[in-house]
Amino acid sequence: MADAPAQQKETRWLNEEEREAWLFLSSIMFTLPGQLETQLVKESGLSFVEYMVLAMLSESRDQRLTMTELARQTNTLLPRLSRVVTRLEKQGYVERSVWEQDRRVSLCHLLPAGWEKVKEAAPGHVEDVRARIFDLLSPAQVEALAQIGESILGDKPSRVIAVDGVSRA
Amino acid sequence: MADAPAQQKETRWLNEEEREAWLFLSSIMFTLPGQLETQLVKESGLSFVEYMVLAMLSESRDQRLTMTELARQTNTLLPRLSRVVTRLEKQGYVERSVWEQDRRVSLCHLLPAGWEKVKEAAPGHVEDVRARIFDLLSPAQVEALAQIGESILGDKPSRVIAVDGVSRA
Repeated sequence: MADAPAQQKETRWLNEEEREAWLFLSSIMFTLPGQLETQLVKESGLSFVEYMVLAMLSESRDQRLTMTELARQTNTLLPRLSRVVTRLEKQGYVERSVWEQDRRVSLCHLLPAGWEKVKEAAPGHVEDVRARIFDLLSPAQVEALAQIGESILGDKPSRVIAVDGVSRA
Repeated sequence: MADAPAQQKETRWLNEEEREAWLFLSSIMFTLPGQLETQLVKESGLSFVEYMVLAMLSESRDQRLTMTELARQTNTLLPRLSRVVTRLEKQGYVERSVWEQDRRVSLCHLLPAGWEKVKEAAPGHVEDVRARIFDLLSPAQVEALAQIGESILGDKPSRVIAVDGVSRA
């Protein structure tokens, strides 16, 4: 007789601990983005992804990144990122250019007004993240969470050409 | 001299461990919903929130919940939940009624076709969650994650009237 088809093998249902962990992650996924965005919009007029774009640029060398790297760092797909960057350009916060060493590569630069904007928005946002997450955790829990993140995300090599021409992991 | 205004107190920036933990949670928030929904839509034709509604009803007593409790269990605001339930009603998976003991309370019931649908969708969804999360964690990490969830979510009393008339925490 033939074996049962692969798709009929027994389902590995979640046990009680896994279920609790999963309910936590689901809750984070579905409620936290809206809560954080509410604070940002109210206090800075920025959406969450707009804030992330400015923040990632502000932390990068020369305050510029390739659009591909910026998409990776903000967990955004390129078409969406492109629309976000267009909105930020209209407000004078960032500007795009082509990379002089390879004209297929688009760069996004933080402008002085964008730097001022993210500097103004960051303290309130960080306080909000602390109030919702880190103030509620012990240092050991924070360390465990960082390690769990590393196990899940792994080292996802993003073989992009960095602005300095060196391929970065 | 007057003290500095409260909003100018020093910002408590994230330390390195907190930053790593936060990058993990951000990544979960922004990438996991789309990944899980892609699997569900492809294999079952259900969006993530539609799946959640059917799953929560299937696990509840008498396979029915108040709309308020269903909103809480699916992390959805009532107006959005109402639109989702309307779509599921059109497909014959659920049906709404008013609770006979208090006509201000709306109930949502799982119908036999909805039960079949969630039974068919669940194994593939659980495998996907395992592959993306739990297969990558040790039992100790799962336990830590569940405890972190408890610290962050706390006991959020949802003082809703349950179907059996007993107020549930």
